[in-house]
Amino acid sequence: MTGKRTTGSQAGRHAYEGLDRAIHEKARLGIMTCLLTHKDDLTFGDIKELCALTDGNLSRHLKVLEDEKLVEVEKGYEGKKPKTLCRLSKEGRKRFLDYLEELGNVVKDASVEKVLREEGSKKSGNSSWAPA
Amino acid sequence: MTGKRTTGSQAGRHAYEGLDRAIHEKARLGIMTCLLTHKDDLTFGDIKELCALTDGNLSRHLKVLEDEKLVEVEKGYEGKKPKTLCRLSKEGRKRFLDYLEELGNVVKDASVEKVLREEGSKKSGNSSWAPA
Repeated sequence: MTGKRTTGSQAGRHAYEGLDRAIHEKARLGIMTCLLTHKDDLTFGDIKELCALTDGNLSRHLKVLEDEKLVEVEKGYEGKKPKTLCRLSKEGRKRFLDYLEELGNVVKDASVEKVLREEGSKKSGNSSWAPA
Repeated sequence: MTGKRTTGSQAGRHAYEGLDRAIHEKARLGIMTCLLTHKDDLTFGDIKELCALTDGNLSRHLKVLEDEKLVEVEKGYEGKKPKTLCRLSKEGRKRFLDYLEELGNVVKDASVEKVLREEGSKKSGNSSWAPA
């Protein structure tokens, strides 16, 4: 008993431990999403364009995702031109789906529509907030 | 014409520029969500408990949110005991709702159910993937 105002059962309610930091970073979230939603492998150039990233940034983030075994990167050639193909690993697909579930929890918790409705009723006068 | 495979209209499709980095960081996302969903101001201790953060981490992230004018922090006393009250600023509320809209776009793009259904049809045999 330390005089806290919140109920104990709410402890960690907004910790969102499922938001895997390897995936959560904004650029990597974009990369993971475009790899998930494209059935075929994507080239380095495809991802660069879809995510509006520079060569340097995309290389850096792909390296993180590869080190985390989330993404498989295959370097090869098309004729004499180097061609890098990227895809989600099986593990990466699973971890990303888990991540998306937690992301859904954040959106549900924030419950935008409910908040906006409350905003609306506040504007219509404080009297509506009086206890019945 | 540079021989790219993706269509030009998809450029930046997964850039998610609306994912404000000040808010997107995992701990700060938790702090913003608990402030949005509690009608009353929260104390430092409340947030610490709800987000399962250490004193040091919470101080550091609150400072970022305060510097960005997303959160208002009011330091006072309850009797002789120091008490810090936190709330979203008007600007912070607006920016967080915009952020949540973009987060909804990520979830929609990833469209988990659709992907899972595709997984299901893959499992039911490769023959279903043969060209017609």
